[in-house]
Amino acid sequence: MIYQVSIIGSGQVAFHLITLFKNNKNFELKQVCARQFEKVSGWINHAQWVADINQLSEADLLIVAVSDQALPAIAEQILLKNTLVVHTSGTQPMSVFGQHLNFGVFYPLQTFSMSKDIDFSQTPLCIEANNPHNLAFLEDLANKISSKVAHVSSHQRKILHLCAVFVCNFVNHLYHIGASLSEKHQVPFELLMPLIEETTNKIKYLHPKEAQTGPAKRGDESTMQAHLELLDDELLKTIYKTISLAIRKNEL
Amino acid sequence: MIYQVSIIGSGQVAFHLITLFKNNKNFELKQVCARQFEKVSGWINHAQWVADINQLSEADLLIVAVSDQALPAIAEQILLKNTLVVHTSGTQPMSVFGQHLNFGVFYPLQTFSMSKDIDFSQTPLCIEANNPHNLAFLEDLANKISSKVAHVSSHQRKILHLCAVFVCNFVNHLYHIGASLSEKHQVPFELLMPLIEETTNKIKYLHPKEAQTGPAKRGDESTMQAHLELLDDELLKTIYKTISLAIRKNEL
Repeated sequence: MIYQVSIIGSGQVAFHLITLFKNNKNFELKQVCARQFEKVSGWINHAQWVADINQLSEADLLIVAVSDQALPAIAEQILLKNTLVVHTSGTQPMSVFGQHLNFGVFYPLQTFSMSKDIDFSQTPLCIEANNPHNLAFLEDLANKISSKVAHVSSHQRKILHLCAVFVCNFVNHLYHIGASLSEKHQVPFELLMPLIEETTNKIKYLHPKEAQTGPAKRGDESTMQAHLELLDDELLKTIYKTISLAIRKNEL
Repeated sequence: MIYQVSIIGSGQVAFHLITLFKNNKNFELKQVCARQFEKVSGWINHAQWVADINQLSEADLLIVAVSDQALPAIAEQILLKNTLVVHTSGTQPMSVFGQHLNFGVFYPLQTFSMSKDIDFSQTPLCIEANNPHNLAFLEDLANKISSKVAHVSSHQRKILHLCAVFVCNFVNHLYHIGASLSEKHQVPFELLMPLIEETTNKIKYLHPKEAQTGPAKRGDESTMQAHLELLDDELLKTIYKTISLAIRKNEL
């Protein structure tokens, strides 16, 4: 069976999903709905571009990959009856589609940037649907994409999204701080890459509590003081002090 | 040539170095100096255990893998003349050995836990020595261990160590926060592993500034507010607010 999929959106998540569905032979990318043709014209191959939501025709799945803010208004405008309509948001409840017949959530738990490809086969797809039939259908479909399909409730998804902010967005910012300090003091950031990889690799084997190392864990005040003196940005000092305090609290 | 290496210390770094040198055929682990025999007896194979620093005999290299606090006093007690004496500290200057003839630094830029093996062949070894002859010798020796040997000054090493706190110790604490929240709300932390791996993987291709995603980058106040309401620990809220503010500042 070839699933017909349409997508609303022109952001990073929409881009990666369009790329996914146009290249996977289990799927036909049917329509892409985006206000500006120019934004998506390079992505959509043979799929039909439509500007308005009321131009969408029935398909097996309609994925609404728009911002959380835009989602409720767009949900209201969708008039399809037989199509399973899902969104990709980590934070919005499934009930945003409450007025529909067939609806759910298709949340890829991943970080999306335009210039970096995504391996969807290893990306957890967190799914939810308004009835067992739709859930089974969505699960079959998701299994054609990823080996990591999970039934996740709206509340669990909210928690996963919160965790994702800590383990992805905030972690990336710490990498950014490391890169900025390296650049400022002219030491090569590449020297830190094996450490960065090992830090990630380690938690496959050890609980992060067991994996913790460093001056804050040891309560090494003189090293922490020396580090604070090397930092000249107040916000950076606050980040250093706050996380060090939290690490220390876990040890006591 | 087989290098004779002796080690002072019984902590995590000493453990991993002992394991390294006893298993690499380019080296003979000669003596291990540690106050308590019981602590190191299981690690040292055919190497000789000595309790006192004055029992150490000449070797090609003596590695002092002790805490920063203990290092100055131990440096004073070492009476060897021909042996190149190095320490493994990220923060202590090479000059802690100023009274010696042959000295330097051998700083493996890595995170060490007892229960996790280290691949030294991929671990940057940051070396420094008191003269070009000793530096060349230390470089030859280090090249037998790792493909990532780097000449790093005492000041550069201090910066790398500071960066390491951000990209390793603090990152691990964020993993710990993610794991704790998952456990508390009964969602499987494994679902976050592909995201964690991709976050690390991404910065091989993109500068961390380009790789940044999430509500703070987008200035999505309502998601950030909802996240803060899910957190009940004040320190955790402070970490969330401070890093979000720093991410947002970078975007403006």
